[in-house]
Amino acid sequence: MLVELHPLQSSPMALTLYWGSGSPFSWRVLLALEHKRLPYTSQLLQFDKQEHQSPQMLKLNPRGKVPVLKDGDYIVFESVAILYYLDTKYPQEPIFGSSAEEAGVIMRVICEFQAYAEPSLSKIVKAVFADRVADDIDELTDAMHAVAREARTIEGRLSKEQWIVGAHYSASDMVIFPWIQVLRRALDRSVAAELGARFLPMERNYPALARWIRRIESLPGYERTYPPHWSATHIR
Amino acid sequence: MLVELHPLQSSPMALTLYWGSGSPFSWRVLLALEHKRLPYTSQLLQFDKQEHQSPQMLKLNPRGKVPVLKDGDYIVFESVAILYYLDTKYPQEPIFGSSAEEAGVIMRVICEFQAYAEPSLSKIVKAVFADRVADDIDELTDAMHAVAREARTIEGRLSKEQWIVGAHYSASDMVIFPWIQVLRRALDRSVAAELGARFLPMERNYPALARWIRRIESLPGYERTYPPHWSATHIR
Repeated sequence: MLVELHPLQSSPMALTLYWGSGSPFSWRVLLALEHKRLPYTSQLLQFDKQEHQSPQMLKLNPRGKVPVLKDGDYIVFESVAILYYLDTKYPQEPIFGSSAEEAGVIMRVICEFQAYAEPSLSKIVKAVFADRVADDIDELTDAMHAVAREARTIEGRLSKEQWIVGAHYSASDMVIFPWIQVLRRALDRSVAAELGARFLPMERNYPALARWIRRIESLPGYERTYPPHWSATHIR
Repeated sequence: MLVELHPLQSSPMALTLYWGSGSPFSWRVLLALEHKRLPYTSQLLQFDKQEHQSPQMLKLNPRGKVPVLKDGDYIVFESVAILYYLDTKYPQEPIFGSSAEEAGVIMRVICEFQAYAEPSLSKIVKAVFADRVADDIDELTDAMHAVAREARTIEGRLSKEQWIVGAHYSASDMVIFPWIQVLRRALDRSVAAELGARFLPMERNYPALARWIRRIESLPGYERTYPPHWSATHIR
């Protein structure tokens, strides 16, 4: 069957992203939308006002979580599913590779990150922002070791290539990057000094990761993805 | 650009699946291979002999986990990434839908299952098989509530449609089914009687899920996916 695979990308009539500032899951989708140069309406929800749990939002996602993407009448949530939907619907620029083999590696790296890094990252970040580091120091130290182990693997990948999988910026970069930024921000707090001692500064401990962060920070549209509530209190 | 999207499916020269009996992650891939009628060499590893951690296997997947798929010289692991690779490489029969919209829902349901059901399922199954139910009964009861909540949502989907997403058997069925079977097997143990009381029998508590299980059990090739070490001691 012959089909036109990459026509002029069909223009989305009405893409709306519901998201929250500082949510690594939301950030992934913003990076994808900017990379694909898709026009979208940004609906920034205020977590502290529980706007993500409003009746209107619960109608879109009964779990009351963001990000949620609306494309016309179609609704999709869960960040990796949104990335996958966007790439299938709007294949330019591809973010899941340009061959089955690349697609497999990109998804594999995403699955590994979700299974082996995310639970620990989440534990650390929650504890730091809730000021509970001292209470759980043993568990958090273990979590930090797990994160460091995964970061070391990613460092290895990035010391050979510009991007996490191969020669192109992909969904794997978009999935991992926001968590690294959120982690750096958490570890910069004085309460996390001990936890962060062997991780920061990244320039010394993870030089390839540090270069990769700067590479993403200089992409077009990056500033539109940056958590707005961080701008006022930006810690480097 | 015009490309041939669905040629006669290219024949894999040498698909080899490394897997373990009773691993829900391995089972997913077996279901996909059978559904796509792809010829493959089955390499069943013995967990109790640590064969998945052998030097040869660690070369394929440094984490020493199964399933691992080899396709010629190409290697992919993490079950969802394997499903995705297989579907991209061998698009007949599609398991991630036939439109971007379906693809998005299928991936969303998979992500939700991984995030909200799998950690609890894993906790319950491990505790039952390690005979540690009494020690952690409060935590396991909470886990069972979380599982029941997710099962209720899936029951809702299956009472409207034959399959978890829409009219076709898809990767979402393949991801969820093995865990449900492993859970039933765990809850059938006498040590889990209390935990399982409101879940089993599924025919009464989750009739649509029970019908869906029978639907999958009657698919061609199903018996080749069934954990071999269960056959001798098959509990219903």
